[in-house]
Amino acid sequence: MHMTDLIEKKKRGGELSDEEIRFIIRGYTAGEIPDYQMSALMMAILFRGMTVPETTALTLAMAHSGDMVDLSALGPHTADKHSTGGVGDKTSLVLCPMVAACGGKMAKMSGRGLGHTGGTIDKLEAFPGFSTAMSPERFLEIADTVGFVIAGQTANLAPADKKMYALRDVTATVNSIPLIVSSIMSKKLASGARTIVLDVKTGSGAFMETEEDAFTLAREMVNVGRQAGRNMAAVVTDMDQPLGFAVGNALEVKEAIAVLRGEDVPDLRELCLVLGSQILTRSGISPDEETARAALERSIGSGAALRKLADMVEAQGGDPAAVYDPSRLPAAPVRRTVRAPRDGYITAMEARAVGLVSMHLGGGRATKEDVIDLSVGVVLAAKAGACLRAGDPLAEIHAASETAAAEAEKELLACYTFGDEMPVRPPFIRGVVS
Amino acid sequence: MHMTDLIEKKKRGGELSDEEIRFIIRGYTAGEIPDYQMSALMMAILFRGMTVPETTALTLAMAHSGDMVDLSALGPHTADKHSTGGVGDKTSLVLCPMVAACGGKMAKMSGRGLGHTGGTIDKLEAFPGFSTAMSPERFLEIADTVGFVIAGQTANLAPADKKMYALRDVTATVNSIPLIVSSIMSKKLASGARTIVLDVKTGSGAFMETEEDAFTLAREMVNVGRQAGRNMAAVVTDMDQPLGFAVGNALEVKEAIAVLRGEDVPDLRELCLVLGSQILTRSGISPDEETARAALERSIGSGAALRKLADMVEAQGGDPAAVYDPSRLPAAPVRRTVRAPRDGYITAMEARAVGLVSMHLGGGRATKEDVIDLSVGVVLAAKAGACLRAGDPLAEIHAASETAAAEAEKELLACYTFGDEMPVRPPFIRGVVS
Repeated sequence: MHMTDLIEKKKRGGELSDEEIRFIIRGYTAGEIPDYQMSALMMAILFRGMTVPETTALTLAMAHSGDMVDLSALGPHTADKHSTGGVGDKTSLVLCPMVAACGGKMAKMSGRGLGHTGGTIDKLEAFPGFSTAMSPERFLEIADTVGFVIAGQTANLAPADKKMYALRDVTATVNSIPLIVSSIMSKKLASGARTIVLDVKTGSGAFMETEEDAFTLAREMVNVGRQAGRNMAAVVTDMDQPLGFAVGNALEVKEAIAVLRGEDVPDLRELCLVLGSQILTRSGISPDEETARAALERSIGSGAALRKLADMVEAQGGDPAAVYDPSRLPAAPVRRTVRAPRDGYITAMEARAVGLVSMHLGGGRATKEDVIDLSVGVVLAAKAGACLRAGDPLAEIHAASETAAAEAEKELLACYTFGDEMPVRPPFIRGVVS
Repeated sequence: MHMTDLIEKKKRGGELSDEEIRFIIRGYTAGEIPDYQMSALMMAILFRGMTVPETTALTLAMAHSGDMVDLSALGPHTADKHSTGGVGDKTSLVLCPMVAACGGKMAKMSGRGLGHTGGTIDKLEAFPGFSTAMSPERFLEIADTVGFVIAGQTANLAPADKKMYALRDVTATVNSIPLIVSSIMSKKLASGARTIVLDVKTGSGAFMETEEDAFTLAREMVNVGRQAGRNMAAVVTDMDQPLGFAVGNALEVKEAIAVLRGEDVPDLRELCLVLGSQILTRSGISPDEETARAALERSIGSGAALRKLADMVEAQGGDPAAVYDPSRLPAAPVRRTVRAPRDGYITAMEARAVGLVSMHLGGGRATKEDVIDLSVGVVLAAKAGACLRAGDPLAEIHAASETAAAEAEKELLACYTFGDEMPVRPPFIRGVVS
């Protein structure tokens, strides 16, 4: 088998066999197939696409290129959630404790933020003492006793994906549905959960800008996961504006805690109820969505979910008192209120640009090496659809200095579009793919 | 300027500017742009194509990546001919002496054969003592005094093409019209002739299998050459079967000499008259094609062209007596006549397969390192369209041993298709693009 022939086949629109795809991934992971052949193949895939069997074979080959985590000791109700990434996305911090309180087992490996999107690990580090480093044994133990754990990557998950992703990034081959599907799903399959629920974002702050692309991606990922024997569902949700109101690490933790305490942050709470219902029903914990939703709402009302968060923070070395007293979390020295420059409706928001405001304040990384300030960020007071008078609060900036706050104010104002007509907003949950 | 952005632009179907193309070629030649980005770009070009301004800019950037040969000392009538490659193509050996006898100056750099196609330099080395190695000064001197010279590559021509060609070969990005155009034309432009005439082959033994592709390639090359200020023409010709009857180095030299002595080898002689007419008219030597053709025919009839060949062979250290007495050229020890297995018409021939018969006899190279036997090959007795009786001679095999000859006989028979109906053959000259 020769790589050149396989590139030629895909270039002409042919279908690669399982064996051919395994040959490619094995050879590339081992360094026998050079980058220049892989990049040519990926560009051909970008133009020609892949069939469902090809995408499935690619995903499985990539998953098996490294460790396959065994979560079977945790029983049948292991679950994982993946978001394609957005701004203000603190979903895991709310969802995992809720699911754990309902009997699910979520043993998550998570990442750090880069660019305009944040990372769950960075957010959790806002709890003084919190650590995501642990042995594989301790990882399983926390998942078993608490019901959820969020670690850094403790295993060698899908090394083929790591190499391919770095190459795609510098060869303009990122936006290919089969390559995105295999990249996300190879890591999820290797992570070992029986049930996988995906949150596919669409809109200006998301990777998939159009709803059509988001649904295609969602369907393909659900297909591939099911082919691999997992319980699958995907939810397509709005990322035309940030999720919730808080953007910034400690600020997002505070908002997650607020939801677990019963405060209503409409889109965030609803998202966790929808994702959670999918997890509970797909994994067999709940018989139907109504029961699942009631159980999840109860986990908030009873305080059980909040206690799960405190238990997990404590198990991972953090200060559980901060869960009950968020004033123990890092806070920025400067706060500045940004006010509406005119009367009217907020007709649109640039979610991605809001993420960049937080990054520029020091809350996110431009490069992997950057050190971040967990205290800074933005708390929105109004989002798209709101009707304001000039001078009403739009947002509060949390900054390290007055200079940084002034700069952020200018940037943040540019994220908003105002108008005189009430905008027609699409529903936050665009649909469920299952 | 970032290479990733330029790949992205081309991938989306955008047009690269002159400046962007120069950035790419300069960076790639200097080793600053890695192979994996170049191969991704070339695959995107393969799918998206290039506009005429893009192809022109690419060709010029590649031409200027190395030496630009200055032939201005030879006067206004410098000419070059390029063939896209075929089997039995000894055109240069006939055409160059004819043009030189008519006042043209052909200072050619030529290559060696690989695979099923032969190379002019290998053929010329059939003259005992002949050498293609010389100083640039001597190269110009022979071109000036004799009217033509055929050297190996004495200058550093289009190094960008050398790198890109090697990469295309292993990334399935060979068959892209703009990449083929820029590869061929960058070297031709760098070679310095004022007039460039192209022989674009079409058919089973050619790189461009369909006539449509051949015409597209011909038109694009003529366009680009003209944009670069050269006198241009292209001829699209048949390569469904070998050109002439002889395939093999010394055998082809003998056939070339036969044509220069006035013998009629219909397709070969006609091709040289058509290409020669284009050179003489485009370069301004002859006022019209009729005059040009008459002059070229006279160069054969008068023996002037044959003398030019002898002068050139002598100037490059070879034995000129072999031009008048071809028995001084290498001859194979074994000759075997292959006979028609049945009555009927030859309806088709696999030109490429005939080239491979000669290669397997030792007359061509499977890899660049192979040493070749100049004496061996095949002389066809009948080509497509011929009507034969079983037992009539089809071809004569010239081999180093009886074993090799027997093997070649089997292979050669498989190159022919026989039938009962006279085949309809398209004209040998498919058209002239100018």
